[in-house]
Amino acid sequence: MKIIEPKILPGFMELLPEDQIVFNTMLDKIRSNYERFGFVPLDTPVIEKAEILLSKGGEEAEKQTYRFKKGDNDLALRFDLTVPLARYVSSHFHSLNFPFRRYHIGKSYRGEKPQRGRFREFYQCDVDIIGDGELSIMNDAELPSIIYFTFKDLGFENFTIRINNRKVLNGFFEFIGEEKNSSKILRIVDKIDKIGKEGVIKELLQIGLQDDTIKKIINFVEIKGDNSVIISELNRLNIDNKTFLNGLEELSQVAINAKFFGIPEKNYIIDLTIARGLTYYTGTVYETVLNDYPQIGSVCSGGRYDNLAENFTERKLPGVGISIGLTRFFDQLMEANLVKGTQSTLSKVLIIPMLDDLSFPLEVATKLRNNKINTEVAFEKKSLKTQFTHASKIGVPFVIVIGEDEIKSNLLSVKDMSTGEQFNLTFDEALKKIVLK
Amino acid sequence: MKIIEPKILPGFMELLPEDQIVFNTMLDKIRSNYERFGFVPLDTPVIEKAEILLSKGGEEAEKQTYRFKKGDNDLALRFDLTVPLARYVSSHFHSLNFPFRRYHIGKSYRGEKPQRGRFREFYQCDVDIIGDGELSIMNDAELPSIIYFTFKDLGFENFTIRINNRKVLNGFFEFIGEEKNSSKILRIVDKIDKIGKEGVIKELLQIGLQDDTIKKIINFVEIKGDNSVIISELNRLNIDNKTFLNGLEELSQVAINAKFFGIPEKNYIIDLTIARGLTYYTGTVYETVLNDYPQIGSVCSGGRYDNLAENFTERKLPGVGISIGLTRFFDQLMEANLVKGTQSTLSKVLIIPMLDDLSFPLEVATKLRNNKINTEVAFEKKSLKTQFTHASKIGVPFVIVIGEDEIKSNLLSVKDMSTGEQFNLTFDEALKKIVLK
Repeated sequence: MKIIEPKILPGFMELLPEDQIVFNTMLDKIRSNYERFGFVPLDTPVIEKAEILLSKGGEEAEKQTYRFKKGDNDLALRFDLTVPLARYVSSHFHSLNFPFRRYHIGKSYRGEKPQRGRFREFYQCDVDIIGDGELSIMNDAELPSIIYFTFKDLGFENFTIRINNRKVLNGFFEFIGEEKNSSKILRIVDKIDKIGKEGVIKELLQIGLQDDTIKKIINFVEIKGDNSVIISELNRLNIDNKTFLNGLEELSQVAINAKFFGIPEKNYIIDLTIARGLTYYTGTVYETVLNDYPQIGSVCSGGRYDNLAENFTERKLPGVGISIGLTRFFDQLMEANLVKGTQSTLSKVLIIPMLDDLSFPLEVATKLRNNKINTEVAFEKKSLKTQFTHASKIGVPFVIVIGEDEIKSNLLSVKDMSTGEQFNLTFDEALKKIVLK
Repeated sequence: MKIIEPKILPGFMELLPEDQIVFNTMLDKIRSNYERFGFVPLDTPVIEKAEILLSKGGEEAEKQTYRFKKGDNDLALRFDLTVPLARYVSSHFHSLNFPFRRYHIGKSYRGEKPQRGRFREFYQCDVDIIGDGELSIMNDAELPSIIYFTFKDLGFENFTIRINNRKVLNGFFEFIGEEKNSSKILRIVDKIDKIGKEGVIKELLQIGLQDDTIKKIINFVEIKGDNSVIISELNRLNIDNKTFLNGLEELSQVAINAKFFGIPEKNYIIDLTIARGLTYYTGTVYETVLNDYPQIGSVCSGGRYDNLAENFTERKLPGVGISIGLTRFFDQLMEANLVKGTQSTLSKVLIIPMLDDLSFPLEVATKLRNNKINTEVAFEKKSLKTQFTHASKIGVPFVIVIGEDEIKSNLLSVKDMSTGEQFNLTFDEALKKIVLK
């Protein structure tokens, strides 16, 4: 028989059991934090009509999308969870309650050029709140607290959620008469961490801006300090522009309320250089950076959009949401040696039977499982030494050996694999020891 | 702007939040039972090379598979989780510990003709145990207990796990000189519940069998009784065929040990008419039927295969596994009105703030969440009546209203939505009431 090489395609992540366990633990933590804030789960088809998924247009999306025919159907794989959300909310509008708070954890697909840190299949973990007609700015203020508690639960402390508001930026550019250059300016300003202030000035000159305008822009993006300082500096600019003032009011609301949501000041700053892409968002925008690992980039981003589903319904459905790209994030954590799987089992107990008659070992296993202890039994006939080597390799915390002596005495020989200690215990004593570990 | 009709494709399941919550609860129960028995999670790409996924051949698989090109790659979507498992185990052989116990809960794809109860995208919930070279029959004996505890946890009591062994069937057909007709005979015998004994005899005559042979077959499949009766009847047949005797020994092992795994006798029978497809399995086979809903068919099936990964490796990797097709099962439970979502939220508490200053309500929300209570805050400014209507609609168990009085008194006004009772409570009292519900 011809042997086919068992390889997956480049750009797809596949983990060994020990790493998959860590990955799933992270996924579970994200999920339970999303549920903690009252979001309900959704699941939508991975395959949809191409005209639906590509309704937003955009050459890049078009190029990267997996698109194919099956029979007469022009199909595609979803490349994000936002277009399916828009389609879902439009389709089920009359059965949903608004504001509609949903989370969606699932795979999306982009046929990008495979390169380090880029995946063609990746998990996204999204929460969005969708309003019917309108949606309070307090929802924008709540999302950073979801980011904060989620990343804290994932084991991070030193991270910063950066907030901005697109209306503040757009209003400022309108005010200085540069709205037509706003996207160019944002792209340059965004690089200030890399190329420095001088670099930014140089590039702004290159696109033809006046010295005076450049000075205003530099002064604007150099506004730093804690959130209340930035808010009062922005107020002091006396910018008489409706968009700007509206954005500033929103930004203030988001910043002022953060502390009531339980976010420490240090995890949360206004950053006037953040724009998050140039077309999609219309108000609040978020980025999250692990301060010790800035090279990872933003680990959780999102923002406010005025009208989620304009391609599918006449209704106005404003929304605000965030997303964690877990596949890429996990990959980078592995690269940085920040996560490492140590166990390739979820069992707490491995039972090794020494006799052919398995009735007693199986009864012990069933009793352990009925007490919510993950338990497996070593059925293969191998030497005790081989079985213990296997137990060490998979990283199971306890081994229970059951031979003639144990059956006679009705005591279990329990080995704590982390300390090497061995005990002869009744079932209840053993259970207590295992539960407490 | 042109409005696109927001419809999904036929053959895809998409649920409203209240049903999605029920679906996910079932998925979680299946997962936790699989983990209870010491299985580790795997996740493999949905897209693989077509030559890998279609390596087993088979015209039907070929026809139903979503297959497409992206650049030069000939790709396909997985149509089950077994071929990816075979590829995974071959690919990662040296990094895995055997016996390798994995579960995989994920979506698979088959571009079938859409019809009631058939889905093109469906969840499969699989466990398999893979041995390196050999695998004890005790693994086959363990799987029915996983089925039993899982379905019990899903709320079912009256179901029967039917067991058989392909070697018993094949050995018997060899013994009566009908091995070349064995698949035809099995297909006919399989219909005995529908067409009756007379119908079976008629069809066996039509394929050209002798009266004498037909009598032997009917006697064989009519062996009924509890498991020990069937085993002793099979022994009494004195069939001198190696395959048969080997199968009978395996079937005895599986049947005898079932009770030590904690399965009540009534949930577990040997059924000599079960074959589970005609080529794939080589030993033990399983089916599971809800006795009150036989029309649903088998809700959990599986079996033993001698050689999992012969297309990918020279190694012999025997395995045994079971699968629950949750999408189809859930659909049928909904059809039969056996599941019905009642809540479209996972929140236990909805906080309704009555004042503009949200500091106190937000602090209460944060404290509840820190105590693991799923909590949401009603940010939209609406009348109390509208808010309570919303609370009833989503089915949240508790509503806490916070106005001036509550802030002054530092007491919370808590309404138990199921009883309509209202209480004025300190935070700790409220927490206790919510946790206990």
